[in-house]
Amino acid sequence: MTRARELNWMQVEEYLSRDDRVVLPLGSTEQHGYLSLETDNILAERVSAEAAEPLGVLVLPVLPYGLTPSFASYPGSPTLRLETFLSVLRDLLDSLYVQGFRRFLLVNGHGGNISGQSLVREWVAAQPDAQAIFHSWWSSTRVQAAAKEVDPEPSHANWFENFPWTRLQGVELPQERKAPLDEAAYRVAGPRQVRELLGDGVFEGAYELPDEQVARVWQAGVEEVRDLLESGWR
Amino acid sequence: MTRARELNWMQVEEYLSRDDRVVLPLGSTEQHGYLSLETDNILAERVSAEAAEPLGVLVLPVLPYGLTPSFASYPGSPTLRLETFLSVLRDLLDSLYVQGFRRFLLVNGHGGNISGQSLVREWVAAQPDAQAIFHSWWSSTRVQAAAKEVDPEPSHANWFENFPWTRLQGVELPQERKAPLDEAAYRVAGPRQVRELLGDGVFEGAYELPDEQVARVWQAGVEEVRDLLESGWR
Amino acid sequence: MTRARELNWMQVEEYLSRDDRVVLPLGSTEQHGYLSLETDNILAERVSAEAAEPLGVLVLPVLPYGLTPSFASYPGSPTLRLETFLSVLRDLLDSLYVQGFRRFLLVNGHGGNISGQSLVREWVAAQPDAQAIFHSWWSSTRVQAAAKEVDPEPSHANWFENFPWTRLQGVELPQERKAPLDEAAYRVAGPRQVRELLGDGVFEGAYELPDEQVARVWQAGVEEVRDLLESGWR
Amino acid sequence: MTRARELNWMQVEEYLSRDDRVVLPLGSTEQHGYLSLETDNILAERVSAEAAEPLGVLVLPVLPYGLTPSFASYPGSPTLRLETFLSVLRDLLDSLYVQGFRRFLLVNGHGGNISGQSLVREWVAAQPDAQAIFHSWWSSTRVQAAAKEVDPEPSHANWFENFPWTRLQGVELPQERKAPLDEAAYRVAGPRQVRELLGDGVFEGAYELPDEQVARVWQAGVEEVRDLLESGWR
Amino acid sequence: MTRARELNWMQVEEYLSRDDRVVLPLGSTEQHGYLSLETDNILAERVSAEAAEPLGVLVLPVLPYGLTPSFASYPGSPTLRLETFLSVLRDLLDSLYVQGFRRFLLVNGHGGNISGQSLVREWVAAQPDAQAIFHSWWSSTRVQAAAKEVDPEPSHANWFENFPWTRLQGVELPQERKAPLDEAAYRVAGPRQVRELLGDGVFEGAYELPDEQVARVWQAGVEEVRDLLESGWR
Amino acid sequence: MTRARELNWMQVEEYLSRDDRVVLPLGSTEQHGYLSLETDNILAERVSAEAAEPLGVLVLPVLPYGLTPSFASYPGSPTLRLETFLSVLRDLLDSLYVQGFRRFLLVNGHGGNISGQSLVREWVAAQPDAQAIFHSWWSSTRVQAAAKEVDPEPSHANWFENFPWTRLQGVELPQERKAPLDEAAYRVAGPRQVRELLGDGVFEGAYELPDEQVARVWQAGVEEVRDLLESGWR
Repeated sequence: MTRARELNWMQVEEYLSRDDRVVLPLGSTEQHGYLSLETDNILAERVSAEAAEPLGVLVLPVLPYGLTPSFASYPGSPTLRLETFLSVLRDLLDSLYVQGFRRFLLVNGHGGNISGQSLVREWVAAQPDAQAIFHSWWSSTRVQAAAKEVDPEPSHANWFENFPWTRLQGVELPQERKAPLDEAAYRVAGPRQVRELLGDGVFEGAYELPDEQVARVWQAGVEEVRDLLESGWR
Repeated sequence: MTRARELNWMQVEEYLSRDDRVVLPLGSTEQHGYLSLETDNILAERVSAEAAEPLGVLVLPVLPYGLTPSFASYPGSPTLRLETFLSVLRDLLDSLYVQGFRRFLLVNGHGGNISGQSLVREWVAAQPDAQAIFHSWWSSTRVQAAAKEVDPEPSHANWFENFPWTRLQGVELPQERKAPLDEAAYRVAGPRQVRELLGDGVFEGAYELPDEQVARVWQAGVEEVRDLLESGWR
Repeated sequence: MTRARELNWMQVEEYLSRDDRVVLPLGSTEQHGYLSLETDNILAERVSAEAAEPLGVLVLPVLPYGLTPSFASYPGSPTLRLETFLSVLRDLLDSLYVQGFRRFLLVNGHGGNISGQSLVREWVAAQPDAQAIFHSWWSSTRVQAAAKEVDPEPSHANWFENFPWTRLQGVELPQERKAPLDEAAYRVAGPRQVRELLGDGVFEGAYELPDEQVARVWQAGVEEVRDLLESGWR
Repeated sequence: MTRARELNWMQVEEYLSRDDRVVLPLGSTEQHGYLSLETDNILAERVSAEAAEPLGVLVLPVLPYGLTPSFASYPGSPTLRLETFLSVLRDLLDSLYVQGFRRFLLVNGHGGNISGQSLVREWVAAQPDAQAIFHSWWSSTRVQAAAKEVDPEPSHANWFENFPWTRLQGVELPQERKAPLDEAAYRVAGPRQVRELLGDGVFEGAYELPDEQVARVWQAGVEEVRDLLESGWR
Repeated sequence: MTRARELNWMQVEEYLSRDDRVVLPLGSTEQHGYLSLETDNILAERVSAEAAEPLGVLVLPVLPYGLTPSFASYPGSPTLRLETFLSVLRDLLDSLYVQGFRRFLLVNGHGGNISGQSLVREWVAAQPDAQAIFHSWWSSTRVQAAAKEVDPEPSHANWFENFPWTRLQGVELPQERKAPLDEAAYRVAGPRQVRELLGDGVFEGAYELPDEQVARVWQAGVEEVRDLLESGWR
Repeated sequence: MTRARELNWMQVEEYLSRDDRVVLPLGSTEQHGYLSLETDNILAERVSAEAAEPLGVLVLPVLPYGLTPSFASYPGSPTLRLETFLSVLRDLLDSLYVQGFRRFLLVNGHGGNISGQSLVREWVAAQPDAQAIFHSWWSSTRVQAAAKEVDPEPSHANWFENFPWTRLQGVELPQERKAPLDEAAYRVAGPRQVRELLGDGVFEGAYELPDEQVARVWQAGVEEVRDLLESGWR
């Protein structure tokens, strides 16, 4: 039991007497094609929990709102403004620091949240005795390598995020591969153009692959988070 | 199925073609005595879901971080700063409005978040065709009346928030009633004094009551949220 | 002489050598039906001065601008944005703290300013040796009790705020009681609906009552502020 | 009767049907040597009222808190931060604009508030049909010329701000002239150095002059504000 | 070699072992009539470099974006918002302070940036061991006196800013004097009115004067900056 | 002549009558080992100018201050805070948009500025008729490929940024290759650890390579920027 949901403050106080690590999963509620709007939340929280549990490291609730202005034309995709998102991260780091935490692992599940990395870098520069890592679990060299052994196109809302816990009951998926994303067009696309470009919201490639194949990628993600928790510190 | 977790964007788009209501539950991860640190999150989200489901109204994921600076001496109680919290609410309202929502019910589960009410009032003043209600489900006249029929002291982290889904396995609760909170002392207490004053974090009264009694209070809360969703609009 | 207007800095320096309390009245310039636009300013400042004078406690000038976005359709009701108002309070607390003050009583005269309470709570959490109380003088249990002994409907801009020093020369008041406010409608009203709902701006009830009756309520308000100044601290 | 204090919203609505001008006096509560801490507030508000009354132009309550970080070592001198002060001005302009005002005269009584001029310039650039003037009543060419006919050193807290309504009962003033301010030293002085440099807080020159002489300067100030109200617009 | 462009960090570290002064030139990219859009940048940076070089004082790169909302109708005049500009100055002072600098000279080349002075004043009040001077090189008594010996109307974009290094190849200048600026009209002018008023963007007077005459004014500017660097500190 | 420095507003107005593109180079003044503190500024501005000149596209002055909190222990490395940097970008985009520009290419020269990409994405989402590209010229697939043909370790402050216009006269460079950067250590390093880790500030690899080899990489960078300017739009 290492998730805040399963703990009370006395248990956290006891934990802090012997450890100072904490995991903060970061997500985004947004279109994921045929998959759940909470796909990023589910995956960030789950990869954190699976990684942290064997180590007994505390996992906070996922922040379910992130930066997704480009998906504004897809209903169900609320977004924070950039400054707000950064302030949320800063406030959480600040107040957790006051309570005694010193090593922070932010496990990010959403590409649009990448600026959190700059915030973490800035925050750490002002806290000489704290360490913080911003880790986008799905985009690391290690996970991308594992993914590409399965299929050359791991991407937003396709098989790469399609798990028993992100797919929806009764929703059928296209069986064909989607054509590759036109990256040059995507780079200059506003919300309307993004929708024209993506249609169903999936970026490219296969919509689903056999669970046992995808599980290998997932396993790589869990292990990398666990390794960071164990030995990613100075 | 009315929770974002169980829906994809196509389903929300279809929903928006016939409805413009949305529920945003607001919580706080913070000390709740012997109960789960996520008590406010769990209750806000659950009261929203139970109220909204029969009506088919969309429920967003709970915002699990709120304003709780006074509990800084209780580990596991991260807090946003006031401006950040208000910005989060504003951004969510703004971006959901762009996606077509017009009637917003913010179901608040935490006393410290009360300033959200002012934000909602300000936001609505600039959006002539939108309506937004900030509803603290547990503090309404109706719920307080139902609670006081059960026990005269419904309060933070006591029986009033003690449900099968907020209590923790293997954690024993004191059987005696706690002495009433010294409200005058609490009013001028900083974090350290708050902890001295509250000790285990519960404000006062009985730690638990029979579930069937508490369920009556819960039912009043669910029904009031549902009534607001149905007929609280202009 | 305890008001800043009647003092110079040498006198305040002398005061600080023996006391560290200060009163900051908070108002709002806004519609008050037939009464002065400065009703909240006048009352907050006056209740502060009458309470503080016998104790010799310093009273600052009233902040005459607050949060009143819902009255935007009533000319003469400028409003601050929520973040601005909170920043004003924080800055005043911060800079007065630097000058040696440690016990702050914010005497609030306007319902819309309630978020100031959250700001005070947050500010105090970061200042272990300071105390601050946000007190809405007119809404306390004690004053409301005194008011209801006079008339069951003390409310915005009615008899409850009608004093020789808030009423205007040559302005006649309706003699009948106004029908009760439709609170459900008010809850979801934007500025335009608020004006349709309120008409002359008074919420409900009698427009005026005999001064000697209202004076009893006022006296309760003054005494409560004085009690807080004397013994509200830890 | 042109001050908000003496008006209700119905009267302002009637006023707006024939005029769109409004005066916002800006002050600062801060050390003024032997004079009232509210000297800037009193003078800004009074010069506004005397100028506006014959024209029937609306005058708002003075903003009694401004920018005075350099006087931090003089008790009784709270200060806003620069961003906060600018936000207050912007919010007041914004919300008054919504209510129908189009010509704004900000009558400033305090040197430290000079950045308000930049704010006004920026605000006007985004409001094609509004005009706003930031006028420091005491530092205009015209008032300075009138002052120098009386005495070569009109300055902070000396005879230039010494009026029956800013001096304090029972406080005696030095009879000699104070030596000229060392401006080079003042330029690089922090709060502590400012106090060492200024001592009693007066900048230089005579502490008082006969009221009838000072009245001539005052008259120039009132007339200039009135002229701006009458013919300062495009 | 005292400009950051010509130095690496090792050289600055060595410099800091014997000096703690630094010059930050402030400009604005904006219309300057027939002259370069970068006139303010060029002059602020150059006057800084010429003044600092003989003293060996470090000069940072000019900040080429400032506050110029009133020139919005002149293409090529981007502007920062007021709060942003102030934040830039604060951040630079803060981070340079951390690196060991203690005496800051901000050499300002643009009238619209004047609020920087208030920021510097505020910043210094919180840094007891640092000094900072905000110096508008072109508007000092000394430079204005030198200019008026040359011509009675030194002003924006006229001869006063016309140097071999700000004028453009192949651009011809009007030979007649421009009529004096209508200052009353300028005071209430928004961007559109400013353009109507100024036409080519020059405020008034002669467009060019013989270089040797203008050089005398320049020399006064350089010397004053150098004097401040040498003996302007406490 | 396409740089703002060589243009006046009339020329930009004429330009806008036939084009709506503009280039904003982004840099950072910070440690670059033995190279100039302005390396990022020089390269971003120069790659922009070389790319834009043949096309006649307007290039603004480089923003010479960026995000570099991790280099705080290297003197001469001022940094903006993250929010400030983002506000600068937003303000420049906003005000240039008002002046008629619609296609913006931000040419970034500094890794720490990567959050600008999120800002651009957010800004574009609110401006349906504008396009903006945030392009880190040195980190694109194309430039990295060109670099790796020359040497496997193109990196901060090594040969990859060593050009005739960034190296300093009289400064000798180490002749050996520097050992590879310990990326795991760098990830959790605060400013002090960064300095311990990097020593002279160079990340790894060769300090210099023959200019003709580096020129091939440069050429790839210039061409890619030019391609984006020509055909990167929708």
